[in-house]
Formats: sequence, C-alpha cells, structure tokens
Amino acid sequence: MIGRIEKNRVVAGNNAIEEFYKKGFHGRPKNNKLELTLIEAAYLLYRKKLTISESGKELTFRDFFKKAATIESAFELKYIVYKDLKERGYYVQPSAVDFRVYPRGSNPGSGPAKILVYVQSERVPLKVKELLQCLKTAENMRKQLVLTVVDEESDITYYEVKSSKLRGGMEKPHPKLTADATFLEDRIVVWNQAASDTLFNNGFYGKPLDQERLQLSLVEGGYLLSEGVLKVHSMESDEILGIDDFVEKASSIEKDFSLKFAAYSDLRSLGFVPKTGFKFGTHFRVYREVKSLEKLPHSEFLIHAIPNNYEFSLPVMSRAIRLSNSVHKKMIFAVEKAEQINYIEIGRKKM
Amino acid sequence: MIGRIEKNRVVAGNNAIEEFYKKGFHGRPKNNKLELTLIEAAYLLYRKKLTISESGKELTFRDFFKKAATIESAFELKYIVYKDLKERGYYVQPSAVDFRVYPRGSNPGSGPAKILVYVQSERVPLKVKELLQCLKTAENMRKQLVLTVVDEESDITYYEVKSSKLRGGMEKPHPKLTADATFLEDRIVVWNQAASDTLFNNGFYGKPLDQERLQLSLVEGGYLLSEGVLKVHSMESDEILGIDDFVEKASSIEKDFSLKFAAYSDLRSLGFVPKTGFKFGTHFRVYREVKSLEKLPHSEFLIHAIPNNYEFSLPVMSRAIRLSNSVHKKMIFAVEKAEQINYIEIGRKKM
Repeated sequence: MIGRIEKNRVVAGNNAIEEFYKKGFHGRPKNNKLELTLIEAAYLLYRKKLTISESGKELTFRDFFKKAATIESAFELKYIVYKDLKERGYYVQPSAVDFRVYPRGSNPGSGPAKILVYVQSERVPLKVKELLQCLKTAENMRKQLVLTVVDEESDITYYEVKSSKLRGGMEKPHPKLTADATFLEDRIVVWNQAASDTLFNNGFYGKPLDQERLQLSLVEGGYLLSEGVLKVHSMESDEILGIDDFVEKASSIEKDFSLKFAAYSDLRSLGFVPKTGFKFGTHFRVYREVKSLEKLPHSEFLIHAIPNNYEFSLPVMSRAIRLSNSVHKKMIFAVEKAEQINYIEIGRKKM
Repeated sequence: MIGRIEKNRVVAGNNAIEEFYKKGFHGRPKNNKLELTLIEAAYLLYRKKLTISESGKELTFRDFFKKAATIESAFELKYIVYKDLKERGYYVQPSAVDFRVYPRGSNPGSGPAKILVYVQSERVPLKVKELLQCLKTAENMRKQLVLTVVDEESDITYYEVKSSKLRGGMEKPHPKLTADATFLEDRIVVWNQAASDTLFNNGFYGKPLDQERLQLSLVEGGYLLSEGVLKVHSMESDEILGIDDFVEKASSIEKDFSLKFAAYSDLRSLGFVPKTGFKFGTHFRVYREVKSLEKLPHSEFLIHAIPNNYEFSLPVMSRAIRLSNSVHKKMIFAVEKAEQINYIEIGRKKM
C-alpha cells in the first residue's frame, strides 16, 4: 500500500479503505481515497503496512518522521502516545482534544468512545484555563478527560481529570461564642481557656500553645473573625481589627492569603474541616468530619487553591499527585473564578 | 523568683543562679545576677517558676508574651520550638544558630551539645546560601544541623541537613562508540539499531522508540555529544551541532537546562546513572549502578539541581522530602557554585 503526503495528511488509494479503514479503523475515507493523519501514517509505516512516497521516491521511517515533525507541532509527543495506546490494544481516533479512545473490546464501529486524551509535554506549562476548557468539552460529550504527560525520557503518565462535587459532614461550621485574640507576628493567639477549649474541640480550630491558650493560623483567625466569633486585637496598639484590616495584614505576611482564605471559607461552609497541608506541600489537608480529636479520622483530600489564570508546572503537579497517592488521599485543586470555587480532582489512571 | 526586663533580656537576682542555672541550666550568670533570654523567661513564667515585673507591676503571661514578641523578631516561633524541645526532655541553650541542643541524658554541665537547631517559619523563603552558611558553622563545630520548620498551625518538623559525598558504581560513564542522531522538537533520536542497543543496555541511556530507534532526553543527548559519542544533526538543516549550539537550543526549550546538564554530567562522571525524576517531581532519580536492565535496582536518590542563589519555598521542600521518604529514597539537592557541585542531603529527623 502506498501513500503520498498532502499538506498535513497522507492520502492512500481506494484499496486502503478496505485494508486500513474497514479492518482497523485507520484514517477516514474521502472522495474514494483514504486520508490518514501523519501520526496514523507513521504508525502504519513503522508496522511496515504502508510505504510513503514523495516525488516518486520512497521515504525511510527516519525521513518521514523528520518531515512530519516539521509539519505538525508536537508530532513526536503525540506519536509516542498514539503508539502506546495502540500497543495497549485500544482503538484511537483523532479528535479536537488530541485523541478519542474507545473502551477495550469496543471499536469505532461498535460504540462511542469513552475517553478524550489530551497530550502534554512535561516541559510545557499547562494553563488551568486550557485544562478547564478541555474538561468542559469532555463533560459536554459525556467523556472522561485523560491528561497524558510525556516526560523528557518519553515515559507516559495518564491522569484522569474530573470535576468534584464536595460536601462535608459537619453540622455547624463553628461553635457559637465570642472571644478575644491577638494578632501576633504571623499567627493569632486566643488567650481565654474556655474559648480555646471550645474552638479546639468543636471544629478542630488551631493548636494549643499550652493548657490555656490556643494558636490559630491566619486563615483560621480570619474565618472566625469574619464569622463574628473572634475579636482580633493588633499586637502593637491593641485596637480591634476589621476584616479588611485583617486581610490586608495577613496578605502582607502570606502572599497567597486571599486565595487560601477563599478556599478555606468555602470548605468550612461546605461542612469540611480543613487544616494545613504543609507536611504534604499543599495548602490544606481536609477532613470530611471531625467528631472527636481523640479519634481523628483519616483526612480524605489534599486541596491546593489556585487562581483561574494559574499555569501548572507538570513536574510539580506530578509530585503533588504522587504524594497524595502515597498517603491515600485525593488531590483536588480549588480553582477560584469570579468568587466561585470549582474543585477539580486529578489522579493517576491505569490505562 | 522575680525578674525584670532589661532590653532583650530578663535579669533575676543572685538566688536565681542557684535555682535556675545550677539546677536547670537556664540563663547565664553575669555580675552576680542571672541573665535569661526572653524565651527562657517566657518558659519559666509559663511554668510559674518566675514572675516578671515591669515598673513594679507584675506582668501576665499575655502581657509578657506580647511585649517579648515586639522586642525579638520571630519570638513566638522560637518559643514554640524551645518549649517543644524542653518538653521532649532536652537541655537547650541559645546559640548563634538559634539553639544548641544536648544529647538526651546529657546537659551543659556534662558534655558538649551535639545539635544546632535553626528555626524557620514555613512562610519565609529560605535562602540556600543561609542554609549553607549554617551548615558550615555546624560542621566546623562538629555538630549536626537541624533545620526546624514551624508551620502555620504551629506544628513543628525537624530536618537533618548534611553534606553528602557521593560515589557511584559504574566503571565507565558511557560505552565507546560514535553514532548519528537527530535533534527533534524536544528530544534526540538515535536511528541506528546497534548504537541504540548499546547505549540503552550499557548505562541505561534513553528509551527505545521501537525495536530499532532510541529516544534520548536533552541532558542525555547533550552529555553524549560532549563526550564525543553522538553526532547530533539539526532537524531542519541536518547540519551537525556543536556543544554550544546544542546547549543554546536545549536552553531555549528548557530554561533549567544548563543547571540540570551540569548536575547530570557531574553525576555521570561520579559513576552514577541519573534518569529523569519526573514522576517524583525532581530533576533526577539516581541509580548507584545499573548492571542489567532486566534486574533494574532500586534508585537510591532523588536529586534536584538548584543554583547557589536559590530560595527554598519550605512547603515545596517539605513535599519533596516527604515524597522521597515515601518511596524510600534520599532527597539530595545539587547546589551549583562556580562550576562546583555540592550535594546536600535533607531528611526528616525524629527528635
């Protein structure tokens, strides 16, 4: 079977429709010929089922591969992923989001594809907006979005990306009380023993400084202030801080404060108990419900708050997911857009 | 026992020498009085062993704590760590690097301290230069350096920091041969089957594209080019690239290329087999020796290359160490300074 390069396609004759399309769902028939993507053609060339000619001369794999790489951007990447999927036994079709993949045992003739595969190089930062756009496309088509990352040594990692509807188990987000606190250098201290005990034991707020006093993180302090639970005094003048003063002061200490604060407040209002995720390198580890501190449950999620215009460094994303996996938690990104927070879960997928 | 605040110290009378210094190694005698740091004084105040007066008026814990926080920067942080170490049963003394800590069962009267504790807030970026300076101080004093990080909820994590002398087990860093390769979009392809096999099987270079061809990462390609093993052709013009052209081209694709390349080349010359650490979110996973790809050993280290002027984000550092721990590898930072590479190992320490 012989094909010719035409722009960014390889075109083969009528008999290719029988041979490649009807038998293996390669390419798409058009005007009595078969049109193959460069990737499909490279794969058939590698399998020695197709020869490709240019100006009457047959191209070697090396020549065709180099040529295709100059015609189509990220050609090698996509070829590596296509070849991997084929060798795993999947039927693969080109799609707006790189590839459509059919369930094992199914093919384009027997039923719909279930997965959209989006191919990325480890090296190229991934815009959250782009990822959300792909996710929307996939969800509209009722397909699963699989982000596929090719690393510098051409190893492939598959990630499932999905929207997450979250609902926690706490009846009340915080106990009802009013207490005084001081904004010390970069944390808040509650001085009253009864208030300290109540906040710590009902909602797992803060950490005891000692038997009498409670230390709160900036987001905890800000949230309890905004809910009218705390009166926070400044360290220097002892004056009571309003929420705007508090946010301004906290933001000067922690540049991500507003972002974290929005996610923290949203998670509390959804009935979760978020605590710092420092040891996991994320903003929060999140408990669905904390009934008793003696029997602290497993925290189910790691949540990292990111703005809508964020760009993922894929090695950093990979590490976050790998780590969350190793501690049996789901990795969720809280994306803030126009005061709304969308939760996106990303996890390793076995293909 | 009564003390008075004098500048950034609390001074107590002669009888305090007997009571605090001789019995508990708190403070330092001076002119027949006992001088305590604000942290020591706060701890004794909390333990109700000391009262502190100012202008004849006794201060509450809250008043003294707020006052001390305005006098000494990072007072709360250091107090939290001091209190934790005391409650773990250690004798602690002030030192140039925050605290000196004596081995369990030992005290300042019975022998030297073994540990220097350096206290950092999770929120404050840590300059590598500062960390190296502390490490040098500790090594000159023959003490262990313990970096102590206090997170936003006042949880404390202890890390041991040490210089690492590395030596791998490979006899030759690469096989002797010459082969042609092409610099495709962001990776290098070796087209010749014999060369591909030899490079893959002797030193674990690259990853097979298929049975005939080998894909190399940019650092692998650059290293083999610099060692005269590869002739790397450009994709567009087929001309052979010199090492400077290669580095320039690779740097335009990967901004850390030079940094990674220096560490990669150093590790190869030390007899190691570095491979991408993408799945772990670091530059390299490193094998001490690879004799056979069928019996690939466990990679012992994760190595991340950083410049001398780097600033650690402590949540990011925490995640890297936590992850390396969970996969039973040592986390090592390769710090480049004036073409020399220093390897610094950082790991969790149980105190």
